[in-house]
Amino acid sequence: MNRQIRLKSRPIGAPTADNFEAVDAPMPSLGDPPAAAARTGGAAGPAWSPVLRRTLWLSLDPYMRGRMSDGPSYAAPVAVGDPMCGHTVSEVVESQNPAFRPGDTVAGYDGWQEFAVSNGADLRTLDRTLPVSTALSVLGMPGLTAYVGLLDIGQPKAGETVVVSAASGAVGSVVGQLAKIRGCRAVGIAGSAEKCQYVIAELGFDACVNYKRDDFKQALSAACPGGVDIYFENVGGAVLASVLRLLNRGARIPLCGLIAEYNATEHVGGPNLRPLLVNRAMIKGFIVSDHSDRAPAFAQEMTPLVRDGRIKYREDIVEGLDAAPAAFIGLLQGRNFGKLIVRVAAL
Amino acid sequence: MNRQIRLKSRPIGAPTADNFEAVDAPMPSLGDPPAAAARTGGAAGPAWSPVLRRTLWLSLDPYMRGRMSDGPSYAAPVAVGDPMCGHTVSEVVESQNPAFRPGDTVAGYDGWQEFAVSNGADLRTLDRTLPVSTALSVLGMPGLTAYVGLLDIGQPKAGETVVVSAASGAVGSVVGQLAKIRGCRAVGIAGSAEKCQYVIAELGFDACVNYKRDDFKQALSAACPGGVDIYFENVGGAVLASVLRLLNRGARIPLCGLIAEYNATEHVGGPNLRPLLVNRAMIKGFIVSDHSDRAPAFAQEMTPLVRDGRIKYREDIVEGLDAAPAAFIGLLQGRNFGKLIVRVAAL
Repeated sequence: MNRQIRLKSRPIGAPTADNFEAVDAPMPSLGDPPAAAARTGGAAGPAWSPVLRRTLWLSLDPYMRGRMSDGPSYAAPVAVGDPMCGHTVSEVVESQNPAFRPGDTVAGYDGWQEFAVSNGADLRTLDRTLPVSTALSVLGMPGLTAYVGLLDIGQPKAGETVVVSAASGAVGSVVGQLAKIRGCRAVGIAGSAEKCQYVIAELGFDACVNYKRDDFKQALSAACPGGVDIYFENVGGAVLASVLRLLNRGARIPLCGLIAEYNATEHVGGPNLRPLLVNRAMIKGFIVSDHSDRAPAFAQEMTPLVRDGRIKYREDIVEGLDAAPAAFIGLLQGRNFGKLIVRVAAL
Repeated sequence: MNRQIRLKSRPIGAPTADNFEAVDAPMPSLGDPPAAAARTGGAAGPAWSPVLRRTLWLSLDPYMRGRMSDGPSYAAPVAVGDPMCGHTVSEVVESQNPAFRPGDTVAGYDGWQEFAVSNGADLRTLDRTLPVSTALSVLGMPGLTAYVGLLDIGQPKAGETVVVSAASGAVGSVVGQLAKIRGCRAVGIAGSAEKCQYVIAELGFDACVNYKRDDFKQALSAACPGGVDIYFENVGGAVLASVLRLLNRGARIPLCGLIAEYNATEHVGGPNLRPLLVNRAMIKGFIVSDHSDRAPAFAQEMTPLVRDGRIKYREDIVEGLDAAPAAFIGLLQGRNFGKLIVRVAAL
């Protein structure tokens, strides 16, 4: 059987366990026609050269909250009754595609399920000189998000101050470490004293401020004595408003996510924009999937940095596919510590 | 005597007549030392080659509200007791500076007063082939603001839709006409049916929507059937939120002003930023005084367009310096129709 976690109903506000349904579906087979395979991310071309794989690792990411709703967004929602979407690392079980052999480890977008089949156009073979789960974290979509947002939109210059929210998370941790490598002052914002301690002691940020502190505004100001040149925005809400007060002239704000607002059921206001005007500052939204052209440069720079330990990462591993819904609900509340990944099967 | 309108007190909320004071000051003379002249915009160098001039035209602009307050901003406030600041067109009365002769018409920044003296570094001689008041409107700071914001930040491409608020005003009217010249669809937003009629019939915009209509959101949406690629933002508040709903992917928002908020006494919220994220859109604040390097290109392109009538302008002339406070108070309420200029003296 192929265990799947399907979207059972669309959440109103924060997702609950009731919005998901665990189902034992039939095993997909190499003979499945392209139409069925398309659902699991396969690009159905004229030649059907299928690849069947077993999911080893499933990435859980905040953007999935958007896919659970059917409001206007940058990507189509998951259909009710379909498996939830998501990046995966898998082992090839059977293949009629000459590019993939049984036993290969591949990165794909197979979603919340144990097995998937496609013609392989959506797969990328991983080498195993680094832990393959890094393809979902520091060397995967979250890492590329940090790379594109900080370097291409933020355009950091040595000596500047870079602030990043969700600093202990998959994206924020890379933003701050890359900022340090570029000669910047890196200041994190995170949701607990333990996370802040990790961000400073392990990741090497210059400072990290707990946004739950009563004196958050003052503490953030003290952590940025030279003001803020780049704010990598992951969360929205009150944190954004606090950072805007500290902007330097010509500041840049790559807008990557607004996780604090994803579960909102009523209209959420935003920050007053006068600081942008007065400081000639810029906010620019971006979606990492637009920037796949940057993946080769990203991999070339980041892989040796990760291998040499100059960029560190932390994974928060959850055991078993059935644990995914609760882990995802916790992710939206900041309960994870490090990149949230589900171990679906052991290699 | 030198009639001046001075800042008597800082306004709380909307300015009132009580915040201004008309004073008959002594006439400045060529012998005034540089320290005194510096107050009227003169750059006091080692050689004192003074120019005395009489104000003909005084520009009234929304940014002056910011100069009346002493909160943090991009420029120092006017000191209480000093004449209000402002761009002026003047006639040279006396000169010891070889670059200026009596009778010359000059553009400067002499403020709300009848006479001023400086060493001339702050003056620019105007030719008189066009009405000299245009140096305060379509060919002056407001025109350059439109030019830099639309072209350098907005980067319009033929076929795109450009929306501009305060469309009948000094800046907005140039934004829309330049957008048309660049092959764009120009959609204005203004505060009366009469202004909208002018924007369409006289300025040649494709559409203009009255933001005071009950069905403003729907009317704006209908005026932008292809969505919004550039929004030139002058006003803030609810108008901005309505435009954000219509953004196309990759939209650009030059942020020029937030006049709807200038008189606020309480914290004003802003728009939710999710449309920027979903549409990979950008907001960028700018201050025209940073872009004086663009003045030559602006003058070269705009002067013939104005001369040939391809770019039209409308001036709302107020008679006499003493009328300036009431006119300025009305400007912040949208009561003017066209560029607000005070005729301080007839040539």
